[in-house]
Amino acid sequence: MTFSYKRYLSLDPPSRDDFRADKERILDALKPLDASMPLSVMRKLYPLVTNSGYQVTVTLCPGRKGLEVTRVEPGDATGSLYGLALDIGSTTLEMELVDMLSGKAVAHSGCVNSQVRFGLNILDRILAVKEDGNNLEQLRCLVVGDICKLTEQVCDGAGIDREEISALIVGGNTTMIHFFLGCDPWLVFQNPYAPVFFDPGILSARELDLPLDCNVYCFPAVANYLGGDITAGLLLTDLDTSDTPSIFLDIGTNGELCLGCKDYLLMGAGAAGPALEGFGSRYGMRAEEGAIRHLKIDSDGEFHLETVGGGEPRGICGTGIFDLVAQCYLAGIIRGDGTVNLDDKRHTTLVWDENLECSVPAVVYDEKHGLYFTQADIQEFICCKAAAFTMVATLLDHCGLTPGDLGSIYLAGGFGTHIDVESAVTVGIYPDVDRSKLIPLGNTSLAGAKKLLLDSSCLERLKGFQENATYLHFSEMDKFLENMVAARFIPHTDRSLYPSVPDPGNP
Amino acid sequence: MTFSYKRYLSLDPPSRDDFRADKERILDALKPLDASMPLSVMRKLYPLVTNSGYQVTVTLCPGRKGLEVTRVEPGDATGSLYGLALDIGSTTLEMELVDMLSGKAVAHSGCVNSQVRFGLNILDRILAVKEDGNNLEQLRCLVVGDICKLTEQVCDGAGIDREEISALIVGGNTTMIHFFLGCDPWLVFQNPYAPVFFDPGILSARELDLPLDCNVYCFPAVANYLGGDITAGLLLTDLDTSDTPSIFLDIGTNGELCLGCKDYLLMGAGAAGPALEGFGSRYGMRAEEGAIRHLKIDSDGEFHLETVGGGEPRGICGTGIFDLVAQCYLAGIIRGDGTVNLDDKRHTTLVWDENLECSVPAVVYDEKHGLYFTQADIQEFICCKAAAFTMVATLLDHCGLTPGDLGSIYLAGGFGTHIDVESAVTVGIYPDVDRSKLIPLGNTSLAGAKKLLLDSSCLERLKGFQENATYLHFSEMDKFLENMVAARFIPHTDRSLYPSVPDPGNP
Repeated sequence: MTFSYKRYLSLDPPSRDDFRADKERILDALKPLDASMPLSVMRKLYPLVTNSGYQVTVTLCPGRKGLEVTRVEPGDATGSLYGLALDIGSTTLEMELVDMLSGKAVAHSGCVNSQVRFGLNILDRILAVKEDGNNLEQLRCLVVGDICKLTEQVCDGAGIDREEISALIVGGNTTMIHFFLGCDPWLVFQNPYAPVFFDPGILSARELDLPLDCNVYCFPAVANYLGGDITAGLLLTDLDTSDTPSIFLDIGTNGELCLGCKDYLLMGAGAAGPALEGFGSRYGMRAEEGAIRHLKIDSDGEFHLETVGGGEPRGICGTGIFDLVAQCYLAGIIRGDGTVNLDDKRHTTLVWDENLECSVPAVVYDEKHGLYFTQADIQEFICCKAAAFTMVATLLDHCGLTPGDLGSIYLAGGFGTHIDVESAVTVGIYPDVDRSKLIPLGNTSLAGAKKLLLDSSCLERLKGFQENATYLHFSEMDKFLENMVAARFIPHTDRSLYPSVPDPGNP
Repeated sequence: MTFSYKRYLSLDPPSRDDFRADKERILDALKPLDASMPLSVMRKLYPLVTNSGYQVTVTLCPGRKGLEVTRVEPGDATGSLYGLALDIGSTTLEMELVDMLSGKAVAHSGCVNSQVRFGLNILDRILAVKEDGNNLEQLRCLVVGDICKLTEQVCDGAGIDREEISALIVGGNTTMIHFFLGCDPWLVFQNPYAPVFFDPGILSARELDLPLDCNVYCFPAVANYLGGDITAGLLLTDLDTSDTPSIFLDIGTNGELCLGCKDYLLMGAGAAGPALEGFGSRYGMRAEEGAIRHLKIDSDGEFHLETVGGGEPRGICGTGIFDLVAQCYLAGIIRGDGTVNLDDKRHTTLVWDENLECSVPAVVYDEKHGLYFTQADIQEFICCKAAAFTMVATLLDHCGLTPGDLGSIYLAGGFGTHIDVESAVTVGIYPDVDRSKLIPLGNTSLAGAKKLLLDSSCLERLKGFQENATYLHFSEMDKFLENMVAARFIPHTDRSLYPSVPDPGNP
């Protein structure tokens, strides 16, 4: 069953003994479904129902409480059914218009989240609201405006009228959904860490100021840091249905992780660090035009760079850094302990570090454009990957599992999608498992939203996530710090954990 | 239990292991109540809940589906609870602000329904919408504007903030509620006689454009002509609870009637005619300044007039006409068959009838101001009272009852309240029963709304009215016309039905 769906009703016309009103006639015909009808739909019943000869098609959609009739059309209109899937990211929004009968996306659009004018960082936006409460309404209007624009684009693109949209499903982290709903997210990141809501329930598009006549479902959070983007992603996995445990990873500046099978669901979240996304290092940058996103050292020791857009390199983004560290490790340019091998004069040099006020070793990966990666950059990167690795290891430990016990490792987000899997295993952020078990999921909010549009039984699964998840506080766990220190090595101090990674120091 | 009510919640503050969000924390604390929370309330949770130290008072109110949290206040605010009762009449609106803890009305206000600019007659307003669909929104805005004004008046009058209002309950006929909700009432009076809704369900004040943060309940109709004004009135009776059958009468230009006891509920409606409300006759008028509302003939044969406002008479309204006909009948000025006794030269005369183009007999009840009531006026009045009488008799007949079997005869509306009971029995519109059984209820919409504010179990009774009522089609019933003709006499052709009424022709 799709999330929203249509039912064609051939109603008995009114007669001397059956003078039920239109609303009651329709709701009676839907029995034993116990549906309700909002005022906006009641207002459209006359003369639509009479003129249709009492042959109408109703759209049914879950509401805040129970099923709602969200639209009434004349005649049999069951031949079309459309829905919108939306990801509200802090940086970008992505929307798909889905033909819910064929299951296919018929239009796609994306844009920068206009809230970036309050700061790229989500915390800057939260602080802006703290400084001036009116900014909350501004932030709300910005994202609502973006959604309106995307809606127009996908509808125009597919030649579909906006009133044809029968549902909007939204994935986003807890803060993004708070802004979208006009709720202050201050307590997402602040003591006592209890924000306004985890599960906003089903809302009407109109109360959200969206020019649609449908209901809106936002994926629920299970904890502050495990928001609707994560629960949407879990729908794409078998973490709640399989006998074999699997793990779900959404790694970036912060890591969000779930480990589960049909018997349990364990969740945790923690900071990894900006280095994994390309920040913090001197030439680190977002995956924008000119960023080196992939890098290889050929058998002649030559660097081959691939930039976003294909033009001249301006810096290096997260996926490029993974390749860089992995390739340099395998080529003996960077040692397992993260030090630069200055013996390799072709690829290394000393550069002046203004902060440390001394010369530091660095890998030169683009001499022409003067791009290098210093010893400190490497250390920072290793700390971040160690944090991410340790979160995974801790979840496994907690359940007495080893990576080999896992059915799959699901990789969410742009990072999980674009990173080179071999590089990620080589540097030791992912466990060293059969590569076929490493499954990139792409934009999980968008894909999860689409999945829910097509299969309302996902609502039960989402309820299960909310009810059954156990949250682990990594920082309070025994040996978390100790384990993290042990992971500050390429690929790991315990080399037996990475049998498939060649050891350049011991070929 | 009141319709809406408050609950003080001393919530556990968030902790390391209990990081539930505010919304979930509140809804969990209300369990086993299965309440939902609308977006408007969610938006106010931060920082209210934190700042209150997690000690809050929630207002709970029935919603479209299930219970809703309609307000959250800091601390223990259970010491106050207010609601509004409203009657939307086609001519006037009346509102009461009710202290739901003491059960007392603390402020009252009324105004003319601004929709009268589209016509005093309800049909004129419906036709205005037929002519131009935009008039529907205008009519809606007019009544919403009136309600806003009344709300301000009662709140100011009682010194109560508008946000203190926890519920608004509205009585009105089917057409008035359609206008209030912005639904076209065309089919209330037109084939196929199935309007948009009978039971609008519970709405939010905001979606009705009212400046209140509460829910709005409109009494449901059981049939086009048996609207929320009637079901509200039934709450004031024992028609659904007593072993002894009683009857509920709302008589005016149209008559609406219910006969019932705990085993059955029979309903019917029909046109009586404008004469009962003072229209149609030459000097007939609404009960406005200068209208004779009561009239007596003393033992010297002198007319004593009482006008609305106490000034000079300008005409006569419905209650005055009842007195006039009854008094003249008892004084032998009008005969039982409705003819004017021209032998009584002191009180009668011949007047020129422009329509009939001849002189007709008339009763002169105010010689000084030239006010008279013609033979034709009397006949018209008798036809109307006969119609009303016959509707009552038909309901009784249908159940094999006589007036003596009735527990009570409940009299709704201004007519039932202001009419002189003796006059009404004398002319033969009410059955000749023990006068203590004739119980005026006043403004039943308003009183029913107040009753529901104070006792939510009335909702079950209202459901019973909707589910159990049987509707009689008077016009299709055997002998209805025949019985009506037999009733065209003062008090009735069958004089044995009116033993308590003196017979002037046979003293």
